Amino acid sequence: MSTIKDIIVEYYRIPLPELVSDAKHGVHTHFEVPIVKVITDDNRVGVGYTYTGGFGGRSVAKLIQIELRNALLGKDPANVEHLWEVMQTAVHYLGHGGLASFAISAVDIALWDLRAKKAGEPLYKLLGGSSNEVFTYGGAIDLSFPLPKLLAHHKKYLDMGLKAIKIKVGQKTLAEDIERVKALREMIGPDTLFMVDANMSWTVEQAIKAAREFLKYDILFLEEPIDPNNYEGHKIIADRTGMAIAAGENLRTPMEFAHLIKYGQIGFPQPDASNVGGITGFMKVAAISHVNNLPVSAHGMQELHVSLLAALPNKGYLEMHSFPIDQYTTRPLVIDKKTGYAIAPEEPGTGVTFDFEKLAPFKEEF
Amino acid sequence: MSTIKDIIVEYYRIPLPELVSDAKHGVHTHFEVPIVKVITDDNRVGVGYTYTGGFGGRSVAKLIQIELRNALLGKDPANVEHLWEVMQTAVHYLGHGGLASFAISAVDIALWDLRAKKAGEPLYKLLGGSSNEVFTYGGAIDLSFPLPKLLAHHKKYLDMGLKAIKIKVGQKTLAEDIERVKALREMIGPDTLFMVDANMSWTVEQAIKAAREFLKYDILFLEEPIDPNNYEGHKIIADRTGMAIAAGENLRTPMEFAHLIKYGQIGFPQPDASNVGGITGFMKVAAISHVNNLPVSAHGMQELHVSLLAALPNKGYLEMHSFPIDQYTTRPLVIDKKTGYAIAPEEPGTGVTFDFEKLAPFKEEF
Repeated sequence: MSTIKDIIVEYYRIPLPELVSDAKHGVHTHFEVPIVKVITDDNRVGVGYTYTGGFGGRSVAKLIQIELRNALLGKDPANVEHLWEVMQTAVHYLGHGGLASFAISAVDIALWDLRAKKAGEPLYKLLGGSSNEVFTYGGAIDLSFPLPKLLAHHKKYLDMGLKAIKIKVGQKTLAEDIERVKALREMIGPDTLFMVDANMSWTVEQAIKAAREFLKYDILFLEEPIDPNNYEGHKIIADRTGMAIAAGENLRTPMEFAHLIKYGQIGFPQPDASNVGGITGFMKVAAISHVNNLPVSAHGMQELHVSLLAALPNKGYLEMHSFPIDQYTTRPLVIDKKTGYAIAPEEPGTGVTFDFEKLAPFKEEF
Repeated sequence: MSTIKDIIVEYYRIPLPELVSDAKHGVHTHFEVPIVKVITDDNRVGVGYTYTGGFGGRSVAKLIQIELRNALLGKDPANVEHLWEVMQTAVHYLGHGGLASFAISAVDIALWDLRAKKAGEPLYKLLGGSSNEVFTYGGAIDLSFPLPKLLAHHKKYLDMGLKAIKIKVGQKTLAEDIERVKALREMIGPDTLFMVDANMSWTVEQAIKAAREFLKYDILFLEEPIDPNNYEGHKIIADRTGMAIAAGENLRTPMEFAHLIKYGQIGFPQPDASNVGGITGFMKVAAISHVNNLPVSAHGMQELHVSLLAALPNKGYLEMHSFPIDQYTTRPLVIDKKTGYAIAPEEPGTGVTFDFEKLAPFKEEF
């Protein structure tokens, strides 16, 4: 048995190449990446991380540096299920999801990196997967893009070989949203999958009205029409329109997914390992989804999620997203241009190896 | 209109007079009190605060100092409902309850302090209350107290005039819990209200077994038998035993209370203004409870909750708790010895005025 000798946290705040906005969170100028290094007494290092849309990352880093580090020092890093519970308990009163889940996620990913490196296996194989291919769609925080730019942006995804795209909705008027959806569907043709994402900007009644219109353009799913904690609202929208609903990026625990699946009857759960409790949390959501006969799609963090989805019997859709974390790793997401599938890395560990030289200019105190 | 000129955060980490423990969170050695000062351009100061059981307070302070401060500078401090939404949105992606709710709570309380001071009214009158009296019970983090000490501790509450007490349960065996409950009931006699608190240590089946035994000792409610996010578990326990269930200190948003009341059918919602979104969040929970015909009880923070409960048409029970925040204020909770009721303060503002000289030795960097 080896033990955890130290846990080091670094905080990076990285400017986006351009300002982007969505219907709920407004304008993003930066994204934050707290990176965790878990160091064992036999001098192995596991690397994990989380990310935010530019806000709160310092509080996440602080929680890891003090509370989670105190809870884990001296423990066996191999016991990931036990340590997940230890971390949940250590921050329980402040936790129950929320910001604490980001901190737990970063550490949990580092623990899985240690496990996979020790096993000498890529993550998707350690998790029992047999295929390294994952169906992928192109997304963007593109609510403020003028229509020509929107079309050009998503044309690039098609040129990369992707067979699916997703755009933001939630413009000032529904007519504007419909115009953009119509133009996109015309550009991509009938065979490309097409999803839309409202970032919780609507009431149930607004969502019903919009969903009814979008159905005319063969939309696969409507993502986050409303606050995801309004569980039954999702069922009402789906019941009254037939539109499939996706949600999950704003849920912070597997239990919240269990509630949304049960009470909300969503069709597309979308966990994010960076905020639902890491790989351990993600795999619990995957199991809940599987027994409910639902595919698992993923939100953001494509450089890691490609390995998680590759491992699942119920793999859904990988989001290729606009926070370019993978541009600061040695292996940005690889797409097979012929099939349009993303390919999970084969190297031992999570397959996410940061380029710390490239990151260095963006390191800040927290 | 005045505007918010600055928001200052201070972090205090205060040792407890003795180590205390509960069934979920283990041993507490300190409590943390992040204190917020909201300063207006016309040089008024509103003071708010939150508290923790010793963990995570630095992350809370950091979130206020950076994200919430940025979101509120220059805004009109009188618009508390609007600013509550502004704060929720500012930390939304990391928020949805959890740790962010502690930060929002502290600032919201400071904004209400400004409002009440400006109105020249005590908080319970500003909120529309007509009586300053609140039924109060004595609680403690007393799971590890040997039986003689447990009895002596609660005897003190009776001597103060209180007509109700609550003890922790969740010992290694149910037999030990029953022995303690029996001894307490014998000491307090049949006319004193008696509650028990399991701090989420049980499964539903364990809770059912325990509740059935506790009913023999006329227990008013069983608090937190299970994880509060297992909403329907609460209903199952109540349905199968007839025991009333209390919960709330580990819920972080009014929506979570709505779920627990709807799906869990609890009898005693217990919001805490320090972690459910401040006074604004607490009053939303009070409204949900009122329309569901439920009394509102409170968890901890008695020096502030006395004013909130005093204002409610559906006021329930005030917990007089063992984190002695009020010992660091100029007016520790006042109990009318004859009636056993706590009395809300009459001074303008929240009525919680910190003794910063007494606090000074416990101030730390965060």
